[in-house]
Amino acid sequence: MDLDLLHRLAQPSQAKTLLFVMDGLGGLPGSNRMTELEEAATPNMDRLAAEGVCGLHSAVAPGVTPGSGPAHLGLFGYDPLRYDVGRGVLAALGTGEALSPADVAARGNFCTVDAEGRVADRRAGRIPTEECARLCDLLRDGVDLGDTDFLIKPVKEYRFLLVLKGTGLGPDLDDTDPQETGREPLAPRALNKDSEHTAAVVADFVEQAQRVLADQDPANMVLLRGFSSKPEWPLLPDVYSMRAACVAAYPMYRGVSRLVGMDVVDVEGGFEQELDALEAAWNDHDFFFLHYKKTDSAGEDGDFQRKTSLLEEVDALLPRILSLGPDVFCLTGDHSTPAVMRSHSWHPVPVCIRGRHVRPDRVTVFSERDCALGGLGPHFPSTQLMPQLMAHAGRLRKFGA
Amino acid sequence: MDLDLLHRLAQPSQAKTLLFVMDGLGGLPGSNRMTELEEAATPNMDRLAAEGVCGLHSAVAPGVTPGSGPAHLGLFGYDPLRYDVGRGVLAALGTGEALSPADVAARGNFCTVDAEGRVADRRAGRIPTEECARLCDLLRDGVDLGDTDFLIKPVKEYRFLLVLKGTGLGPDLDDTDPQETGREPLAPRALNKDSEHTAAVVADFVEQAQRVLADQDPANMVLLRGFSSKPEWPLLPDVYSMRAACVAAYPMYRGVSRLVGMDVVDVEGGFEQELDALEAAWNDHDFFFLHYKKTDSAGEDGDFQRKTSLLEEVDALLPRILSLGPDVFCLTGDHSTPAVMRSHSWHPVPVCIRGRHVRPDRVTVFSERDCALGGLGPHFPSTQLMPQLMAHAGRLRKFGA
Repeated sequence: MDLDLLHRLAQPSQAKTLLFVMDGLGGLPGSNRMTELEEAATPNMDRLAAEGVCGLHSAVAPGVTPGSGPAHLGLFGYDPLRYDVGRGVLAALGTGEALSPADVAARGNFCTVDAEGRVADRRAGRIPTEECARLCDLLRDGVDLGDTDFLIKPVKEYRFLLVLKGTGLGPDLDDTDPQETGREPLAPRALNKDSEHTAAVVADFVEQAQRVLADQDPANMVLLRGFSSKPEWPLLPDVYSMRAACVAAYPMYRGVSRLVGMDVVDVEGGFEQELDALEAAWNDHDFFFLHYKKTDSAGEDGDFQRKTSLLEEVDALLPRILSLGPDVFCLTGDHSTPAVMRSHSWHPVPVCIRGRHVRPDRVTVFSERDCALGGLGPHFPSTQLMPQLMAHAGRLRKFGA
Repeated sequence: MDLDLLHRLAQPSQAKTLLFVMDGLGGLPGSNRMTELEEAATPNMDRLAAEGVCGLHSAVAPGVTPGSGPAHLGLFGYDPLRYDVGRGVLAALGTGEALSPADVAARGNFCTVDAEGRVADRRAGRIPTEECARLCDLLRDGVDLGDTDFLIKPVKEYRFLLVLKGTGLGPDLDDTDPQETGREPLAPRALNKDSEHTAAVVADFVEQAQRVLADQDPANMVLLRGFSSKPEWPLLPDVYSMRAACVAAYPMYRGVSRLVGMDVVDVEGGFEQELDALEAAWNDHDFFFLHYKKTDSAGEDGDFQRKTSLLEEVDALLPRILSLGPDVFCLTGDHSTPAVMRSHSWHPVPVCIRGRHVRPDRVTVFSERDCALGGLGPHFPSTQLMPQLMAHAGRLRKFGA
């Protein structure tokens, strides 16, 4: 739904809303024909399902597997097809780097080029992250872009983040990554006039980087892609006139939350520390996004049993979360990560909303199969979730007389 | 769905369709955990549910509570976000005032201004409707706008309707209502060139009104908002090439029906008189919109038991309605008005369609929770209802070869 319309309908409320996202929640049946969530003993989630209204959502479109960024944007009510974040910006968010709208960010690879300058290995033999950090130090010291400042940060293995900071920078550039071996890196090419200066700066960066890295082995060159700038979107606190907080330990989720204007609460450590932080922040905000990461990691690892056990662990922590007394509570995931697929998937994601004015359905078990029979429907766009949470929180006035 | 496409697909048919709308039908559980509809003994509705296909619809978007105008437009197949009626026009419809497209309508408040002309009470102490009528008489007699005729009518308490009738009037004007006390009413401001003459006429009206009301207490000034003209939309009889009739006693529903081109049948009295009128009109039309108001009023009053009893009363009248033998019969509401909320709400609305070629589902009870399991789905846009009724009536030909 249109954020401008929601802003027009927004009204103040005292109600507190807690959106609890278990990353990669949705699953598929394993060897015993039950999904991770069906196999897990989750009495607290089931009680919630019995009291609330359930369903399944998906982020981008039926059949489309969302990445973490788009999946979370959908949950926050931003249509990922309309609110498109560049890969460079996503990488910056993932490292916790706050961008200004004038910056241009890109994802970088350290790669190996042969004596003729042709890419021999796009990932430089997947060098370890420590080596990546050392090479970033070399570039930081050895490259000078004149009027343009730059920031370079290791991400993981061969991957790094580059942020250009200056004036007159446009983000519309083709990748320098040729995407295959045996070819030279591509020259930076501006896609419009506003980005021509950036293309020159990037060409300068690449040339100097090649010189600085010439003697390194195996990572003696860089490839850049996903040039992009921080978008200027309507912000959640403005759309709904509320104080919104992100409680998440992982940089990516903190970054996406920052992008939509949430306050990002300090968290050191794991989920228990997130809960400490949530409790500490409870009085200061109206809307909370609480994020649990490990279910996704277990799914990506293909570890069905671990994902099941983690769901049981989270279930045991639910009473602690609910004891905060949110007026509106939503339990869901951002996307599915079935252990049998070892990856994100397109399957819709279970969701349950509990609140005073919820209309109950017949669902009494929080699982994929049961949620498909719920009042929210078996496959609704995740962008429709946030307006419904806001309705339950009394934050949307009537449309028309 | 697009009305142009539906018009392209429309074909003639002998079938008669009856859309029966119980206003504010949808509810929420009361003290005994059942909704109004679940608590009511409605054997005729349940039989209908067993024979037909059921589901739940909503008018504007999930989470958005519709007003009566948008809710009915949705039922008639007009997307309320696209077919946006101005507040002034809605007020005119509500009083039963037929507008020509050249008229400009506005909602008015009688208010109190202090000696410096600043608004002290936007509602003039909520003067009674009789006082409002007396002040309207004063303005009608005391104001002269030269070439522009005007019509002024009391609505309720401090609220009145103003309609300007003349040539060269445009509706795009800012409100004069400052929306807060302590400020002077705003000067009428045209938002485009076509409305500049209207702004001058309105300024003249406001100035004369202030003079006429100067000695009145407490209502000594007017505020105007929602300037708008009757929109020129595709009309239902044209879209589907059929004769459509509205059978409703309340002005608002007659007005919205007129807006989409229905014939409005004369009705004096309550629902039984509506049924008399429906029977009298049966041979002369192909499509009938029959409206029952009292369920909404009971919900707005927070009277759970009365709403339940009214549903039982309507249920007892269903055989009389069905004895007319509509080929396609649809039982639904325009929006939910749960007694526990004492207001319209965003919750989707039960619907059942019965017809010769309906594909039945597993629903055998007409209730919110049961309809959520129906073949029409637990949450479809109300604009999708009318095309389905027309399909069942044989009024839509195949799309493509």
